[in-house]
Amino acid sequence: MAETATTQLSELLAQGDPVALRELFASLPESDRTHAAGRLPTQDLARLLDLLGSEAAAELIEILPLSQAAAAIEEVEPKAAAEILEELSSNERADVLGEMWEDDRQAILDASETETAREMRALLAYDADTAGGLMRTEYVALRSDQTVSAAIDQIRREADAYASYAIQYLYAVDLQGRLEGVVPLRALLLARSEARLADLMVRNPVVFRVDDPLETLDFVFRSEGFLGAPVIDDGGLLVGVVERTAVDDAAIDEAESDHMKSLGIASGEELRSMPPLERSRRRLAWLSLNIVLNLCAASVVAAYQDTLQAAIALAVFLPIISDMSGCSGNQAVAVSLRELSLGVVRPSELAHVLSKEAFVGVLNGAALGAMLALLAYLWQGSAVLGAVVGLALAINTLLAVSIGGTTPLLIKRLGWDPALASGPILTTLTDVCGFFLTLQLASTLLL
Amino acid sequence: MAETATTQLSELLAQGDPVALRELFASLPESDRTHAAGRLPTQDLARLLDLLGSEAAAELIEILPLSQAAAAIEEVEPKAAAEILEELSSNERADVLGEMWEDDRQAILDASETETAREMRALLAYDADTAGGLMRTEYVALRSDQTVSAAIDQIRREADAYASYAIQYLYAVDLQGRLEGVVPLRALLLARSEARLADLMVRNPVVFRVDDPLETLDFVFRSEGFLGAPVIDDGGLLVGVVERTAVDDAAIDEAESDHMKSLGIASGEELRSMPPLERSRRRLAWLSLNIVLNLCAASVVAAYQDTLQAAIALAVFLPIISDMSGCSGNQAVAVSLRELSLGVVRPSELAHVLSKEAFVGVLNGAALGAMLALLAYLWQGSAVLGAVVGLALAINTLLAVSIGGTTPLLIKRLGWDPALASGPILTTLTDVCGFFLTLQLASTLLL
Repeated sequence: MAETATTQLSELLAQGDPVALRELFASLPESDRTHAAGRLPTQDLARLLDLLGSEAAAELIEILPLSQAAAAIEEVEPKAAAEILEELSSNERADVLGEMWEDDRQAILDASETETAREMRALLAYDADTAGGLMRTEYVALRSDQTVSAAIDQIRREADAYASYAIQYLYAVDLQGRLEGVVPLRALLLARSEARLADLMVRNPVVFRVDDPLETLDFVFRSEGFLGAPVIDDGGLLVGVVERTAVDDAAIDEAESDHMKSLGIASGEELRSMPPLERSRRRLAWLSLNIVLNLCAASVVAAYQDTLQAAIALAVFLPIISDMSGCSGNQAVAVSLRELSLGVVRPSELAHVLSKEAFVGVLNGAALGAMLALLAYLWQGSAVLGAVVGLALAINTLLAVSIGGTTPLLIKRLGWDPALASGPILTTLTDVCGFFLTLQLASTLLL
Repeated sequence: MAETATTQLSELLAQGDPVALRELFASLPESDRTHAAGRLPTQDLARLLDLLGSEAAAELIEILPLSQAAAAIEEVEPKAAAEILEELSSNERADVLGEMWEDDRQAILDASETETAREMRALLAYDADTAGGLMRTEYVALRSDQTVSAAIDQIRREADAYASYAIQYLYAVDLQGRLEGVVPLRALLLARSEARLADLMVRNPVVFRVDDPLETLDFVFRSEGFLGAPVIDDGGLLVGVVERTAVDDAAIDEAESDHMKSLGIASGEELRSMPPLERSRRRLAWLSLNIVLNLCAASVVAAYQDTLQAAIALAVFLPIISDMSGCSGNQAVAVSLRELSLGVVRPSELAHVLSKEAFVGVLNGAALGAMLALLAYLWQGSAVLGAVVGLALAINTLLAVSIGGTTPLLIKRLGWDPALASGPILTTLTDVCGFFLTLQLASTLLL
């Protein structure tokens, strides 16, 4: 069925029949819409957005990967693109615009309604992963001296304008628009109609400032139960509301992007709908650097070519020691990353991590070294060879978990992204140490 | 300051002074509470929970890693443990109980209030990562023929019972308790007081069944804006409400756990507060298996020892080819995992992924192969050696991205966790192919 949807979509796009396209789209479950549209090259996706009409196009944008949606919108004629974006909520709109090239973004803003364009320029001034960049500007603010019935009347009058988003809280402000408190919808429901918002509101609620980073927002939302929090500017004016869902989505995106970056995919983003040359380029940047890092480790081997020549069986074990040490080190990296994100370890606590890892390093080093020594002895029939590779693996396991456990903390202290750099730095270091240990031990003990 | 908090906490624990402990805890910001308590060995943490009193202990449990909280609660005397758990919401309580050993769980359930124990046994019957396992049983259900004012009265009467959780929706049921519709709180606020819930409610809302998996819940919540959805049993009876926050937390935990599992940490969980032998064991299980997998690849090298002896410089390049191919393959794995989770690729679409990866594999293989050939020539002064290692890396890059891109899809089709198995399978395969290619090419071209 999914296959049929993809085929049908291509056919209808080729025919350029907007009515049939809209019917097909309306009939498809969402997963099929994502799947079929996600396959289209950018130009075709742009054409689809154009033909669908602004409302259905906006719905499609919400379920597509952001980079893909932004790339397609760039190809839509600015006036039509502005109409599509008008259907999105303010923060989704800012996300899409933020992903676009400057020229395309300006063209769309110029074609947008004056009020929207003004608001968007204000939102785009904030970094994407801050409270300002994640907040939406649609919210219900009421003067704190209003009564419950006046508040309900106002919500009712503007019900249509609010219909597209879920109100959970009202925000009580003073005459100047400075935030005074938060009124949960439930409190409004249960209050007497002549009560004033000032009597119901939660004073001193959790408030974010426009430049609070995603990390702070994520930490607060993960530990508190509320669904959204007000955002104020430097003057204390209420300027937006950041919702839990926006923060969660951004945190998930960041985690995925970090994972991709840690594997050397530039910008942490790749989809197979991107042009092949672009995909190749994103992956190659780091792979090319990795060859150079690998040469560092390889030059250790080169320095010991004579040793290797004399005991060629060592060459069989070098890749094993490299791979095993890399695995042990990456386990320690993962535990540090998790503990950092949970807040149970802090970047300054190197000694604590070292002491904890050293213990496991000694245990696992002994176990793995003994295993490899035994296997090498049984396989190659040389006890000394077994001792060399076993000892090398044992020591290198201890080094690998020590380096692996502490590197994320060090990188975090430098203000970089700990997930990004741990892998390559770690692998190079453990390879250099592992090869050196094996070959130096061999030249001492074996020859 | 954090250091001081940790030290103070240890001292007060040693003195066993509950009043001073509670004061200290009340004065600490949440991040310091997590950090200081997260450091404690299980026995000390259990003592802390006991001394804090049930309310503060429950708050602490909410901000600790689940496995750590569960391990500590196991050490608390069952009656006191039951009182602490009583302060948690039903789904948090079920999570903690679900992490415990059967004996400890039974002891706590036996010491709990009858109603709580009955409810917990029902919740624990569901798998943790299903709608039944993630739902909470606190919700507001009202008969659909009730009026708005009767509904508001009922909420007001039970306001205290509802105070601990955020109501966003009411659930309208028939006489038998079968779900008929959902009433958003806002609709209630704006409705005339004599209207009936049946007139306001959203009919045919999104509903989950108790055995719907986390994956389904996550997909729906990521694409829909609502904050919670009702859960029904096989008979259509409303049995709980699953909230977006519970689903998001579970999805984040699963992603972290998958990452740990993919690095060979058993059960996907390790914290440095665990006993060292336990941590060693969790990491060793996979590392031991990995040695065996590595031997497969090493035996290819062993089979070509004569070739290697004759051209010892090859030994310098084998680890490079192994590492580079592994990196290329893992990039392809990451892209497949992301596309699977976004829904833009499906497990059956091997041919699609192969065609997309092959293109990038040819491009990157050619680029990397040329780089390595040039470097090898410049370094070792042999054009044929350069050709051998360059060609081997080029072909193996193509193989690695093809295997890397398709393995997650294949594993998903087998019903396993694609994140779990991609790494080790991939590394072994790419090493075997890489070593074979290099050494076979060398024995053909070089000797």
